Amino acid sequence: MTTDLKPNSRDRLLEAAAALTYREGVGIGIEALCKAAGVSKRSMYQLFASKGELLAASLERRSAAYVAGLLPPDEKDAPRERILHVFEQVILQAADPEFRGCPYLSAEIELKDPDHPASRVARAVKESLTGFFRAESAQGGATDPDLLARQLTLVFDGASARAGIGAEHLDGFLVPTVTALLDAADLR
Amino acid sequence: MTTDLKPNSRDRLLEAAAALTYREGVGIGIEALCKAAGVSKRSMYQLFASKGELLAASLERRSAAYVAGLLPPDEKDAPRERILHVFEQVILQAADPEFRGCPYLSAEIELKDPDHPASRVARAVKESLTGFFRAESAQGGATDPDLLARQLTLVFDGASARAGIGAEHLDGFLVPTVTALLDAADLR
Repeated sequence: MTTDLKPNSRDRLLEAAAALTYREGVGIGIEALCKAAGVSKRSMYQLFASKGELLAASLERRSAAYVAGLLPPDEKDAPRERILHVFEQVILQAADPEFRGCPYLSAEIELKDPDHPASRVARAVKESLTGFFRAESAQGGATDPDLLARQLTLVFDGASARAGIGAEHLDGFLVPTVTALLDAADLR
Repeated sequence: MTTDLKPNSRDRLLEAAAALTYREGVGIGIEALCKAAGVSKRSMYQLFASKGELLAASLERRSAAYVAGLLPPDEKDAPRERILHVFEQVILQAADPEFRGCPYLSAEIELKDPDHPASRVARAVKESLTGFFRAESAQGGATDPDLLARQLTLVFDGASARAGIGAEHLDGFLVPTVTALLDAADLR
């Protein structure tokens, strides 16, 4: 027997905000968000202080799954293989015709305000990715793990952005690019 | 004797569109654009069919100067030096507190529509930069000039984006990153 659990207004607003801002940008209007969620504006403002708070909460809610979806399973244990796994996931994501780049980078670029609550969420997500790269780089004996981690984050964002705007195809391109940087850093 | 040449409505609209969309995003309203330009909405629509056309024209108008500002002077003749010159310009641009990344990449990310007239302008600008990288890579004997040109464009966009959102400092970071890729491609 299945229980018919309707997502509540808060969940529906968070889902609508995540989906619509990804597809249309952070400029999407409150009306459109409420309409897509099937929630009145009055209810929305009872749940969230502002559209900015709603956006931040929607990015925050998906952040753990986003990062988990990029990171390698424990079975993969060579740092090089673990780092490349992340980029292989980006290639897979980018193959989806609905792909518009990393949602966290896009949000930060669109908001143009590092102090916006959604920008803070986005920054934390990317910092955790950089932290993963740094730990693996150190584990793999990179000459400068911090430098390599920053380079990999730059490539992650650059690749996501360029594939997201349809300017680049990552298959057969991203792995050799990352490999060149891993080799330059003498990663095992 | 100086002549008091007031820029005309078209020029003022183009300037306002370039400045405001860079600072606030492509979602900036027509009213705000017209107000900043000191031009009536009626006049705006006599000059441009739509806000999209105005945006495209404003990006187009600055494109030659944008690319020229990145490219090396003729005196620099070693391909490696000429390629690095571009990235040194990005470092200089990013040192400006008003820097919000490459305006062409931002416009494409924000518009989320590769067929938008402004996206087409933006793509052409970036393709001309990739073309420069490709020619210099070939000239410098890179093993795969096309691959290297794509890698350099990816780094250009990734660095611009990350510096533009305040997530990265390019000084002391960008040149070693580009150099690693140039070395991997055996560029002289």
